[in-house]
Amino acid sequence: MKKDVTIVGAGLVGSLLSIYLSRRGHKVSIYERRPDMRKEKMSAGRSINLALSDRGIKALEEVGIMDAIREIAIPMHGRFIHNADGNTTFQPYGKQGQFINSVSRGELNKKLMDLAEKEGAEIFFDHKCVSIDWKANAISFETPGSGLITRNSKLIFGADGAYSAARLQHQLQHDRFQYQQYYIDFGYKELTIPPAEDGSFRMEKNALHIWPRGNYMLIALPNTDSSFTCTLFFPFDGEPSFASLNTKEKLRAFFEKTFTDAFRLMPKLEEEFFTNPTSSLVTVKCYPWIREDKFALIGDAAHAIVPFFGQGMNCGFEDCSVLNGLMEQYGDDWTTILERFQQLRKPDGDAIAELALNNFIEMRDKVADPKFLLQKKIEARLHDKYPLKWIPAYSQVTFSPQIRYSDAFRNAMKQEAIMQQVMAMPDIDRKWDSEEIEAAVLKRLTG
Amino acid sequence: MKKDVTIVGAGLVGSLLSIYLSRRGHKVSIYERRPDMRKEKMSAGRSINLALSDRGIKALEEVGIMDAIREIAIPMHGRFIHNADGNTTFQPYGKQGQFINSVSRGELNKKLMDLAEKEGAEIFFDHKCVSIDWKANAISFETPGSGLITRNSKLIFGADGAYSAARLQHQLQHDRFQYQQYYIDFGYKELTIPPAEDGSFRMEKNALHIWPRGNYMLIALPNTDSSFTCTLFFPFDGEPSFASLNTKEKLRAFFEKTFTDAFRLMPKLEEEFFTNPTSSLVTVKCYPWIREDKFALIGDAAHAIVPFFGQGMNCGFEDCSVLNGLMEQYGDDWTTILERFQQLRKPDGDAIAELALNNFIEMRDKVADPKFLLQKKIEARLHDKYPLKWIPAYSQVTFSPQIRYSDAFRNAMKQEAIMQQVMAMPDIDRKWDSEEIEAAVLKRLTG
Repeated sequence: MKKDVTIVGAGLVGSLLSIYLSRRGHKVSIYERRPDMRKEKMSAGRSINLALSDRGIKALEEVGIMDAIREIAIPMHGRFIHNADGNTTFQPYGKQGQFINSVSRGELNKKLMDLAEKEGAEIFFDHKCVSIDWKANAISFETPGSGLITRNSKLIFGADGAYSAARLQHQLQHDRFQYQQYYIDFGYKELTIPPAEDGSFRMEKNALHIWPRGNYMLIALPNTDSSFTCTLFFPFDGEPSFASLNTKEKLRAFFEKTFTDAFRLMPKLEEEFFTNPTSSLVTVKCYPWIREDKFALIGDAAHAIVPFFGQGMNCGFEDCSVLNGLMEQYGDDWTTILERFQQLRKPDGDAIAELALNNFIEMRDKVADPKFLLQKKIEARLHDKYPLKWIPAYSQVTFSPQIRYSDAFRNAMKQEAIMQQVMAMPDIDRKWDSEEIEAAVLKRLTG
Repeated sequence: MKKDVTIVGAGLVGSLLSIYLSRRGHKVSIYERRPDMRKEKMSAGRSINLALSDRGIKALEEVGIMDAIREIAIPMHGRFIHNADGNTTFQPYGKQGQFINSVSRGELNKKLMDLAEKEGAEIFFDHKCVSIDWKANAISFETPGSGLITRNSKLIFGADGAYSAARLQHQLQHDRFQYQQYYIDFGYKELTIPPAEDGSFRMEKNALHIWPRGNYMLIALPNTDSSFTCTLFFPFDGEPSFASLNTKEKLRAFFEKTFTDAFRLMPKLEEEFFTNPTSSLVTVKCYPWIREDKFALIGDAAHAIVPFFGQGMNCGFEDCSVLNGLMEQYGDDWTTILERFQQLRKPDGDAIAELALNNFIEMRDKVADPKFLLQKKIEARLHDKYPLKWIPAYSQVTFSPQIRYSDAFRNAMKQEAIMQQVMAMPDIDRKWDSEEIEAAVLKRLTG
């Protein structure tokens, strides 16, 4: 039996979800709080570029739209590290041929909306979800034109992101709702490196650039117009911080000294820094995600994470793919579909949340540490020789959609413990590629 | 400069707080969602009896109202343990002369309201807080008579408990609000052991009775009318659970077998079990608790905890006492008063939350374990001989208001680690009171 399905939120996950549902014959209505970004000019400055990787790609391929998306994606083969002393190093993400993709959130979202509508979904913009009455299967929206309107829907998805209005209704009405929102003490601000005068990229195009500076970092991802979208991840308070860089002079002096090469490529630094918003970074965990066969949270609304593993969107797209598998398996039995969805994805959402928090320290600090780079070199060598026995954590998360996040997290913990022991071995600098080290790792791995 | 202060909630903490504020000359208005419990009949069955102990007593003495409260308090000198095999043991709470006090939440609350009004506070009942506008210093309430009313107030306290409406407004409007609500998988239900026909207590009066049964437990606290208020802490689901005891026959059979002696003293078991609500148990952590000099959360609204250490009310009363000390120190500088209040009490609230969760396992399981009782005996002996060096965790929390919860928590962790080592020593049963053991403990304590 085909259903009238309501999706709250026409973001990346809501739009993709509608495509999956439309393909199975359901009639989908999407209600979006914002105006249509395809018509209005987007508010700039809040859109960390996204890193589309294998889990997201798999979900897009599953509905045959990856080719359309690939047109706006730029491959990044590794981290291009800009050290404080002016030296640079390149650290590949995985094995030869493995890469992640820089995509603009706005461009991707517009493309997904177009595809969603093409598949039959109807998108209602400027509709703000203000209440859900589960007993009556009713959901209400505030609209600028028609005031408060109420729609009946037996199946509602909350795909409205980290600050989900659908989740808030659920939180306020569900007994014993487990809920946690956790903000880190760092915010982010978007900056730009424009194209060169001849229209070319001003830095290596096919890489994710990082300026790791211990407690904070700058990153840059390439855009199709040859610019780079930069993001400064920086403390809200203290020295230095968003609070302390409060004049153009302080800002210039700080950037010139700290991010010298980037500074020279940012002609609009002052304007952007003092105009663009400073955004916060939240992790949200909650449970349950569902109500009987009536409601489910999906994507960031269920499990918002910090962006440091580049997995927020990929995880949300994987949610859609998992749900699709369950629709295939259980047909119209939505009670089972939603129950299994939650059961499968809750531990995975929790795992990627922890991995993402941990990766901030890796990106902003460890990647500048020769000891850490040696560790990565040892792990890459192990992966080469034993491609199934030793898969580096980054590769498990990014390039191995067949490994669940929760398994990747467990494996990562175990591998990190082994590597800590290995790195503490005497003369590791000299004998890092010796058989002794290899044997020690393998013994601990199977032990 | 004296202020018009608004308190949301006329519960235990709101009422006591108003007394402190009135004493300092502030004009206090309390808005309470419920009707006046002194006029209406209270809805029964949701009121774990409270254990008033030294922190709460200190706060009540500070405003000179402890004598009035003592009239409705019954001393409990220790845990009276009803084992599954029918044997009983008595475990004193502290040293000779130390005890906690059983008080009825309803009686205590009524008394505190009377005292609050006597001190000059005005209490508005049937006023449900529905919004707070911090910029406008405005707070709105829904009333049955007058609809929505708005009051102006430059200083607002949210003292409206674990499900605080004031906190929800704060959560929804404060950027980067850290928030966590965590429910355990256990609920509770109130039951009664009535007085004997001659009006006497049917069990030992001056004790907290526990029927520890591993995964769950029954407790009973004495009332001034010679009855006991019993509370069953029990899983929501599984076997056995609130869900599984779904017929009178199953209930009777289970109680008769599991709580044999208590069962014989509960003539209304079936009626109460199937009429009284099953309530849930939540821990709430949040941050910040304050907004400039305008607003503060206090008591359960700031730090709801599970009841297993008997510290929820005591912690809330201690909040009032700490705030009072800060008013003494900083006069009218409410920015500093509230900032220091949060800074002092947040770590203490977090600590007692953890201690309370841990104590559930101690109460429901460990107190029935001879090994645990031996450990307590060793700790009591150490405390006797070295009263300042070794204070058992329970005594630090319950009988030592001079030790902050956060220090007690740290000490407790350290002491527990030492005792784990001691209990693992060979022949500990035989030489528990030897000098060897004593020396081993002291060495680790100072090490």
